[in-house]
Amino acid sequence: MAHNIDRRGLLVGGTALGGMALAAGFGADPAQAASAKAGSQVAGVQRLKVGDFEVTAILDGHIDLPLSLFPKADAAGVKRLQEEAFVPAGDSVRGAINTYVVNTGDRLVLVDSGSGALMGPTAGKLADNLRAAGVDPAAIDTILVTHLHPDHIGGLFSKEGAALFPKAEMAVHEADIGFWTNAEIMAKVPDDVKPFFVAAQASLKAYGARLRRIGADGEVVKGISSMHLPGHTPGHTGYRVTSGQGDLLIWGDIVHAAVLQFARPDWALAFDTDQDRAIVTRKKVFDMASTDRVQIAGMHLPYPGIGHVAKAAEGYRYVKSDWTYTL
Amino acid sequence: MAHNIDRRGLLVGGTALGGMALAAGFGADPAQAASAKAGSQVAGVQRLKVGDFEVTAILDGHIDLPLSLFPKADAAGVKRLQEEAFVPAGDSVRGAINTYVVNTGDRLVLVDSGSGALMGPTAGKLADNLRAAGVDPAAIDTILVTHLHPDHIGGLFSKEGAALFPKAEMAVHEADIGFWTNAEIMAKVPDDVKPFFVAAQASLKAYGARLRRIGADGEVVKGISSMHLPGHTPGHTGYRVTSGQGDLLIWGDIVHAAVLQFARPDWALAFDTDQDRAIVTRKKVFDMASTDRVQIAGMHLPYPGIGHVAKAAEGYRYVKSDWTYTL
Repeated sequence: MAHNIDRRGLLVGGTALGGMALAAGFGADPAQAASAKAGSQVAGVQRLKVGDFEVTAILDGHIDLPLSLFPKADAAGVKRLQEEAFVPAGDSVRGAINTYVVNTGDRLVLVDSGSGALMGPTAGKLADNLRAAGVDPAAIDTILVTHLHPDHIGGLFSKEGAALFPKAEMAVHEADIGFWTNAEIMAKVPDDVKPFFVAAQASLKAYGARLRRIGADGEVVKGISSMHLPGHTPGHTGYRVTSGQGDLLIWGDIVHAAVLQFARPDWALAFDTDQDRAIVTRKKVFDMASTDRVQIAGMHLPYPGIGHVAKAAEGYRYVKSDWTYTL
Repeated sequence: MAHNIDRRGLLVGGTALGGMALAAGFGADPAQAASAKAGSQVAGVQRLKVGDFEVTAILDGHIDLPLSLFPKADAAGVKRLQEEAFVPAGDSVRGAINTYVVNTGDRLVLVDSGSGALMGPTAGKLADNLRAAGVDPAAIDTILVTHLHPDHIGGLFSKEGAALFPKAEMAVHEADIGFWTNAEIMAKVPDDVKPFFVAAQASLKAYGARLRRIGADGEVVKGISSMHLPGHTPGHTGYRVTSGQGDLLIWGDIVHAAVLQFARPDWALAFDTDQDRAIVTRKKVFDMASTDRVQIAGMHLPYPGIGHVAKAAEGYRYVKSDWTYTL
């Protein structure tokens, strides 16, 4: 059978297809035969069992990070890593924005809230995807916040500043609360960083009466413990979910660009409040996760962002978890 | 905050949480607070744009392949590869069963049909997941079959032998039709292989009037070309979907166990009708896909089974495609 023959050619020329297919009655207008295309991806909702708990990865969307945000990265190295990951070459790297709902059986917990209206039209889909997942925002008991950056707290409040999770407490590490509400620090940062402070403060104000300050590491909800992972922000915090044999570390922003930072944990993000400390923390978490074989979830890992970390010839590698083992 | 305190401890002991949370009115019975767990994964439906075409990966389920089906694999090597992939160690490897719907705009094409009732309760979910994807079986114009094994054709016909895709033609490579309908060959195979012949013949019978025999490689549906990839079965065939800049090779069973065969393409499956030829074909496809950077989809790759192949220190590695680039 030759290449580049059209459908008419197939119908006329292919003996088996020709008469028989027509005899079967589907030789009608081909435009009528096909279903309409969906035109969009399905809702970003996927589940994972962690012991008796159920974790649902809820996609908020994605953002493209300009490479200028990785000041230590060299162009040739980036190009090679983009090639190895089969992602488009270019001057940005794409990061998902993931959030996670943890249903412990007696508490319904949301970890981070995506970006709301703060990061443009490719993100801010948490509310839609929560609906697709059958989760009522009013049923969320606790929101565990990894840090107060806009792509993590933008989904918490409306344009008018109202809490979108009307019954939830908001738990945040006290060092992040202190930093993002510090007027002296805010006065000194460049103008393009000031909106970060405004957004952080808006989220805290929306949940003011239901705000919980997280201090020393420990259990914050039964079965979920906080782990202070400073550097990206002063109070950046991971949450370790344990139930039975299940153990998942939701590590927040240990990685912003999977394509780059597993291989090169030293390529820090310009937005880190302390890049050197962020690098130390990233390496420490990679070492712990790879040595102890801890399953991890990350806010900017390729959706659903659940996998493992392994040592590699160059730094580390990310191994996504297989769907068939999830539930 | 100490570990292992219960919810009452948090409510009473945590100052911010204590009074304020109760004041906010969510100190009720915690059993009422959490939503019911879903208890299952979401429907296995994910989309990918290939040029102007839309490809939907539809999950049929999974099967666990005993390691005895990989006679060339050594136990120590398997154990190491299982560890590196963070899958359970043990005497089997899990494979998804994937199918793909290709909507070209004027033809609605199904590639393979999963296992129906032939492979046990962890598979046979094609019909449910097609429904979740909004695809009416009666709207399928063409079923492209990669080969006539039961986990690829079991979803095509009912227990009574009726075609479950009432208007679809069924296209199969002529070498597979010849092999699986050959009474002499069937008479000589071990008893436990005979059901393969029975199932293959049942599928061909169900679509008898609408059967298309695929011969030399070429276009089978506008934008989709057949690629004969023999070894696993005599007529094993891949389908290359091309539209605009989009190019996806749906390679059927080039890989049965991703955990093993990317690193060790020489570890052939006992079910191959010609293991040596299957190995040669697998290596040839890996070489082509990695050199030309062709996106591939595979019936037993981790769902949704869409990614790329890259050369690695040990054989090859599989790089899953990132959700955020799919549509």
